[in-house]
Amino acid sequence: MFSMIEIIGFTAAICTTSAFLPQVIHSFKTKRTKDISLPMYITLTFGAAMWFIYGIFIHSLQIILTNAVTTIFSFAILTLKIKHG
Amino acid sequence: MFSMIEIIGFTAAICTTSAFLPQVIHSFKTKRTKDISLPMYITLTFGAAMWFIYGIFIHSLQIILTNAVTTIFSFAILTLKIKHG
Repeated sequence: MFSMIEIIGFTAAICTTSAFLPQVIHSFKTKRTKDISLPMYITLTFGAAMWFIYGIFIHSLQIILTNAVTTIFSFAILTLKIKHG
Repeated sequence: MFSMIEIIGFTAAICTTSAFLPQVIHSFKTKRTKDISLPMYITLTFGAAMWFIYGIFIHSLQIILTNAVTTIFSFAILTLKIKHG
């Protein structure tokens, strides 16, 4: 079975990865992104992509998968921000 | 000296941690948070706090420090979102 530490780590990873999905849905539906920071999503998309590359280098499937998802979500919000201003 | 992999990991950590600061400043200055997703910042604050606790359990100063910062930034945005709606 999983240890308490593993459950905490797994919960943390699920939360910080899935957190961006409600923002993707919100921005897609409302087509309003004025209150969202552009520099935030430029930096976050770049950073998550760097984590993804880092995961490939150190052969960590967990880092690769979670950051592939984060890069996609963050890039989706960035695209909506650029589109709707 | 640092290896290329270490530099990529360090750059990734700096970016994904500091990314939230422009949003804190943006929301604080404009007092407008309508386009920001509430469920995103509830989930992100909780997730970052879980990573922080995980870092304490596995004695990783890097996970502790980066997630302390992320928890503070995410909680600040969450507080501004609750305040300004």
